[in-house]
Amino acid sequence: MPHDPSAAAPRVNPLVVEVTRGDMVESRHRAAVAVADADGKVVQAWGDVASPVYARSAIKPLQALPLIESGAADRFALGAAEIALACASHSGEPRHVATVLAWLERIGLAVGDLECGSHPPHHAPSAEALLAAGAAPTPAHNNCSGKHAGFLTTARHLAEPTRGYIRFDHPVQQRVLGVLEQMTGLDLGRAPRGLDGCGIPVIGLPLGNMALAMARLADPDRLPPARAAASRRVLAAMAAEPHLVAGTGRFCTAVIAATGGAVLVKTGAEGVYAAILPTLGLGVALKVDDGAGRAAEVAMGQVLRHLRLLSAEQEAALVATLTPPIVNRAGTETGRVRPAADCPF
Amino acid sequence: MPHDPSAAAPRVNPLVVEVTRGDMVESRHRAAVAVADADGKVVQAWGDVASPVYARSAIKPLQALPLIESGAADRFALGAAEIALACASHSGEPRHVATVLAWLERIGLAVGDLECGSHPPHHAPSAEALLAAGAAPTPAHNNCSGKHAGFLTTARHLAEPTRGYIRFDHPVQQRVLGVLEQMTGLDLGRAPRGLDGCGIPVIGLPLGNMALAMARLADPDRLPPARAAASRRVLAAMAAEPHLVAGTGRFCTAVIAATGGAVLVKTGAEGVYAAILPTLGLGVALKVDDGAGRAAEVAMGQVLRHLRLLSAEQEAALVATLTPPIVNRAGTETGRVRPAADCPF
Repeated sequence: MPHDPSAAAPRVNPLVVEVTRGDMVESRHRAAVAVADADGKVVQAWGDVASPVYARSAIKPLQALPLIESGAADRFALGAAEIALACASHSGEPRHVATVLAWLERIGLAVGDLECGSHPPHHAPSAEALLAAGAAPTPAHNNCSGKHAGFLTTARHLAEPTRGYIRFDHPVQQRVLGVLEQMTGLDLGRAPRGLDGCGIPVIGLPLGNMALAMARLADPDRLPPARAAASRRVLAAMAAEPHLVAGTGRFCTAVIAATGGAVLVKTGAEGVYAAILPTLGLGVALKVDDGAGRAAEVAMGQVLRHLRLLSAEQEAALVATLTPPIVNRAGTETGRVRPAADCPF
Repeated sequence: MPHDPSAAAPRVNPLVVEVTRGDMVESRHRAAVAVADADGKVVQAWGDVASPVYARSAIKPLQALPLIESGAADRFALGAAEIALACASHSGEPRHVATVLAWLERIGLAVGDLECGSHPPHHAPSAEALLAAGAAPTPAHNNCSGKHAGFLTTARHLAEPTRGYIRFDHPVQQRVLGVLEQMTGLDLGRAPRGLDGCGIPVIGLPLGNMALAMARLADPDRLPPARAAASRRVLAAMAAEPHLVAGTGRFCTAVIAATGGAVLVKTGAEGVYAAILPTLGLGVALKVDDGAGRAAEVAMGQVLRHLRLLSAEQEAALVATLTPPIVNRAGTETGRVRPAADCPF
């Protein structure tokens, strides 16, 4: 990449987000941010964008590409709903769960074939309703269940074993690794590796390369035709189904919906966020040093403002998303999460 | 001469805690730490211990002093259980809630007199049991309900209005402010102020002064006799009832229990932790820049090791508390929260 890695990286990432309470700033978050174009140029960067980070769920749109390119999505007549769910970290609301279960049935599998593990829905009323009904969360409630349904669909289509599809050496994960290498421009054979919360491999990637992969999704014209078509289908699905990408009250859903799909954002655990910006042909990747999701959201919102992607009306509609209030147990606003006073962008 | 990028870097708090996943460090936390003695000397400090931070619930042991000094605790025959709960950020387990409710009854009040607001128990099985029984959380489940019961008890004893006891200008809060000024050695009239999650005032204090207040609790001999006696009673209650100070699986409870009360630690929201160390006559105060509780716990554990307060047996028994594993949804350990490789203590 033209971005010169030998240029001294800042020793400390910049302060990007601050959390206020009453008269003062109570907590502070640092982050690194890369903005890249599809030529592989990092057009803007703040902080260390050369050291590897785990992209976590922020790259689900990349992980969904083999589902389409393999022909599996067409074979099983998947629509925008299923493809949006394959890209989702969803809140486990009834529509998320029902759509995943119906999808599994369509490929001749069931909830027990998901290897993501279970957790209660992130959407509190859905979690409470489940408990009040005396029911336990299933793997379909896992925020990653759509991604896993996509993995299973590809394995079924290609007549691969479905059991063990989360393992690094399974063809499903090897195909995803290949997509990651092609889209980031990296040889990932020796990249740092770990396990995600849902059991699949995570691979360490520099933020600059992660932003490049997102830019290639945003501006797919120079990709091979099948990859370009799959990229357009992923973007169209996320734009068409913002609620399925995340859920009620979630940052991803609010931003995609408010911009009519012109800005596609995707969260990842431990303070990661990605943006796919088709109108600018750019990709964004950011990571909050300390892993805080509250800061990743506000940092991404500020990047979008910096890139002038939000109209005044959109900013006004998104105010509780871009600078969320902190409300105490009695319902009183005690502070805000907001861009830091000295945020460099 | 090549430009030294570190020379231009702003002064920042040290990296103290890191979060690993697989082959690499995924997230990092910075913190400031002060260790003080009862003479008012900061005997060790890392990072900025002079700027104000909100101590949040970490100073509940100070906020409990008027309950004892006023005679209210004796008037209503409060034991170690109630005083430990006055110092607690409890998990809302059945014993926490039942003890608070019985205490309120003893002072002629009820759950509706608590002004802390409601939230589900932090102890997940207790929260699930509540929902499964079709019940809603009450203010007694709030982690601060013991502190609030203490405030109400003092107001009842002194025949003050109980309504509005959380307000800054109420005598209950003015007495707490006086204790804070005496124990920190500060005039707090113009200190930054805000509202806590439970509605009471929070006051900005430098970590060095917060550590001094904790040291005076730890080494009360030079305090006025009534204050010294109240301090000893607070320490004895926390030592006797570690489960009531926090709850099942919690850092405070584990450390107090494992050390037989020789180390008294108290958590606060937004990454604050305090320690009262009677065997050394020292107090500790720390704040994680980004507000992460996971980092505050591990940082406090490392301070205790640095001060040689844990035997090899205690360290072994506390391994999952001092360097907690991160476990994914399928139950596989994916990483650890641990002291940073270059943690300065």
